[in-house]
Amino acid sequence: MTTYIYPGSFDPVTNGHLDIIRRASAMCSKLIVAIGHNRQKKPMFSLKERIALLNAAIENIECNQNIEIASFEGLLATYARKRGATVIVKGLRAMSDFEYEFQMALLNEHIDDSLETIFLITNIKYTYLSSSAVKELAENNASLRGLVPDNVIEELEQKYGRRLSNAADARAANH
Amino acid sequence: MTTYIYPGSFDPVTNGHLDIIRRASAMCSKLIVAIGHNRQKKPMFSLKERIALLNAAIENIECNQNIEIASFEGLLATYARKRGATVIVKGLRAMSDFEYEFQMALLNEHIDDSLETIFLITNIKYTYLSSSAVKELAENNASLRGLVPDNVIEELEQKYGRRLSNAADARAANH
Amino acid sequence: MTTYIYPGSFDPVTNGHLDIIRRASAMCSKLIVAIGHNRQKKPMFSLKERIALLNAAIENIECNQNIEIASFEGLLATYARKRGATVIVKGLRAMSDFEYEFQMALLNEHIDDSLETIFLITNIKYTYLSSSAVKELAENNASLRGLVPDNVIEELEQKYGRRLSNAADARAANH
Amino acid sequence: MTTYIYPGSFDPVTNGHLDIIRRASAMCSKLIVAIGHNRQKKPMFSLKERIALLNAAIENIECNQNIEIASFEGLLATYARKRGATVIVKGLRAMSDFEYEFQMALLNEHIDDSLETIFLITNIKYTYLSSSAVKELAENNASLRGLVPDNVIEELEQKYGRRLSNAADARAANH
Amino acid sequence: MTTYIYPGSFDPVTNGHLDIIRRASAMCSKLIVAIGHNRQKKPMFSLKERIALLNAAIENIECNQNIEIASFEGLLATYARKRGATVIVKGLRAMSDFEYEFQMALLNEHIDDSLETIFLITNIKYTYLSSSAVKELAENNASLRGLVPDNVIEELEQKYGRRLSNAADARAANH
Amino acid sequence: MTTYIYPGSFDPVTNGHLDIIRRASAMCSKLIVAIGHNRQKKPMFSLKERIALLNAAIENIECNQNIEIASFEGLLATYARKRGATVIVKGLRAMSDFEYEFQMALLNEHIDDSLETIFLITNIKYTYLSSSAVKELAENNASLRGLVPDNVIEELEQKYGRRLSNAADARAANH
Repeated sequence: MTTYIYPGSFDPVTNGHLDIIRRASAMCSKLIVAIGHNRQKKPMFSLKERIALLNAAIENIECNQNIEIASFEGLLATYARKRGATVIVKGLRAMSDFEYEFQMALLNEHIDDSLETIFLITNIKYTYLSSSAVKELAENNASLRGLVPDNVIEELEQKYGRRLSNAADARAANH
Repeated sequence: MTTYIYPGSFDPVTNGHLDIIRRASAMCSKLIVAIGHNRQKKPMFSLKERIALLNAAIENIECNQNIEIASFEGLLATYARKRGATVIVKGLRAMSDFEYEFQMALLNEHIDDSLETIFLITNIKYTYLSSSAVKELAENNASLRGLVPDNVIEELEQKYGRRLSNAADARAANH
Repeated sequence: MTTYIYPGSFDPVTNGHLDIIRRASAMCSKLIVAIGHNRQKKPMFSLKERIALLNAAIENIECNQNIEIASFEGLLATYARKRGATVIVKGLRAMSDFEYEFQMALLNEHIDDSLETIFLITNIKYTYLSSSAVKELAENNASLRGLVPDNVIEELEQKYGRRLSNAADARAANH
Repeated sequence: MTTYIYPGSFDPVTNGHLDIIRRASAMCSKLIVAIGHNRQKKPMFSLKERIALLNAAIENIECNQNIEIASFEGLLATYARKRGATVIVKGLRAMSDFEYEFQMALLNEHIDDSLETIFLITNIKYTYLSSSAVKELAENNASLRGLVPDNVIEELEQKYGRRLSNAADARAANH
Repeated sequence: MTTYIYPGSFDPVTNGHLDIIRRASAMCSKLIVAIGHNRQKKPMFSLKERIALLNAAIENIECNQNIEIASFEGLLATYARKRGATVIVKGLRAMSDFEYEFQMALLNEHIDDSLETIFLITNIKYTYLSSSAVKELAENNASLRGLVPDNVIEELEQKYGRRLSNAADARAANH
Repeated sequence: MTTYIYPGSFDPVTNGHLDIIRRASAMCSKLIVAIGHNRQKKPMFSLKERIALLNAAIENIECNQNIEIASFEGLLATYARKRGATVIVKGLRAMSDFEYEFQMALLNEHIDDSLETIFLITNIKYTYLSSSAVKELAENNASLRGLVPDNVIEELEQKYGRRLSNAADARAANH
């Protein structure tokens, strides 16, 4: 009866995130995917959009009954305790995330020493993948197939699409 | 009903190992502490002694009913599958163990992709601690209080004790 | 008769900083704790406040007669030479600060090759601690006991206090 | 008949960059030094100035006939393909750049798997050197001899010079 | 007309090695795959066997006319110069190999500063793969499909096969 | 009146070691260069030879009156205390030595918390240099000028010289 919490910005969710969600949900009674909401930061997708994208994306995970998409403000440790989660899940891509995650884990333990952090290694297929990379690729019209779920591609096309179709119109108008 | 497996040499078990055992056992139905047995290596403590030291050491863990001390030869992935364990637990001390553990995790996943590896961060109190350091300290008569469980100190004193008492006699004889 | 210089932002000073100050001051004739002042950055505490916080905090260091709190603008190497300091002291937390500090040390040596940089390892108790972490904890009402000196806690409570007391009033009003 | 591409901001070019340019140009038929142009970032030197600085700086490289200074917007992979370059060259300073460059290389390979990335190790003389360090040194009147080509020193003196000479006048006026 | 040299033990060659050989051979006029021969070390495969395994394995590389399998003793830099190679190629798996390779590259440059070292990133599919891992898997009868070329599997089966079948006979004899 | 201790194997001393000795001796009242003597390891140079090589090498350091060459067995912390040294000096080459040194420093602090460890960054000219590299170069007749002091070159030539001259004789005999 262990509840895990998997925090992140998910702006937007990638296939790397979904891989961690699938694997972590198989290891616990309940997995809360917790979108960190920070009023100072300007995400590409609003909190509401990110919740919708995640809810649609986990439809394709076979056993998804124990997954809940949620959001929080403030300290993760406080939110985890409020929700009864005792384990924080983090994905590691190669070595790059390690030091930061290590300090966060120790800090969370300082705040609440009943809170455990476990690390899963991100599938190597996605080791170069991040939400920022996805946004940069989208902005430059590069293909995102295989990197994010289809519903995210559609949403990104819509975000950039107007601008893109305008540009296309402009180019068309030159002929 | 998840079974975790925590592999290692445990030559001898340290307080850092015990900290991981305590925390991991609280997260699963059953925790198998699996001593890797390698006929080519010459451990300080025999397999039998290491099993005894671990069994005595876990007496002091409050909820230890789901902990089993075992041993294996050959591939960890094969042994894990045989025992029905689906999660490998590894402790990380700062950054130093990461790369090796990362490659082992990916290799184990290649052998059996239903096998998950999770990483816990070693308590920072024990970040400088390893079985080799313990043996070097013991060899040089440095204090081990706080680094290994008491039964390991006794066993180490017995191992080195004869030699030490001989040396003491020799010194005494010089007076 | 060696003068050491320990540079930093100290926004605010933490127990990790104080640990380095105590240890470094025991190794030299004089230790200048030098607050870097950068007109482009917006610290939480003004330069004047940071000087006051540091002066109050070092009161609790037993042998503090050779410690001076000072501030500087521009290049550290220039200021060190002006003050007759020949050794820069830096604290390292695990591996995370290393690369940056390494490049700074080499750059300072390029500017003035009579200037030596020495590294002390931050007490492992504080390895997860930084001024930014302190501010994030304070903003979210998490306990800071054991992380910063008491005078810093008071000052932070005052900074955030109005907001906090308002929140407390709001909660009180619900009863 | 291999075309290499060496991307960067070059704001401004340093002797570390020039060392890579010299060595890479000796290994290929053509080397395109490609200044990344990002409308969101505010460089110290305009794109036009950076092109001029690079063109002047490569005058001192003995065999420079196969070097072209160019600029691009958007994805490097797209530009490389457009220009017929099949190899991206990156310089590594110690370990610090590695993780980021590693992820970029894998991402570029995802976008276009005919695109190869090779890494050269930056000359150890320049391991502490970056365009940012150069700008910080210039802002604080530290010597740049040996760190950047002479034409960059002149340009930086001109950028900062007016301000500096005003300051000098002010100081002179006090006498 | 650049000659590259790709040194290693190749005991035995893996698919990770072959990936580097294929990519490097496409970037140069001639690629010498140079098996380091060290009389003090005891490889699993003799030098003669390793040469044969490599020659058979490169049969499957499409454009392999410019690849030569060779061997050397002593310093790589000396052998490279003797063969007219000006570029050393090394593959990097994640971060783990970096530091050692970095020091080797600087040392080789010290010995002969006309010798350049370039790094390619090992295909992420093979990031967990090493000749040692292959031998450990083979010793424990784990599958090697996808990790080494087929001729290496056959050779390994022959090496371990006799021993294995003898063991099987012995077990059979016990019934 | 601070005594520093600089431990190592010095098998043989390199210019990188001498650079640390020179810089550290300028920062303390007395510097003990302490050769670790381990009966289990087989050094190339005997303890007596290493003491002689170091004593000859420090002749070229201008202010060497406060430097003492010594040797110890067992724990460094015990020896440091016996000699009244309160500061251990270690040189760091790039990042590679860091993790090991970090754990040693924490372990020494555990054994004797009045013992401080400071790190100096090895001169970047010697960042690729180690005693092992020196021995490998010597074994392969590569030049050592600039890497070790002249007396070490002479000693190495004598060690390898006989073998080399024998080989030369053998070759000569073939003509």
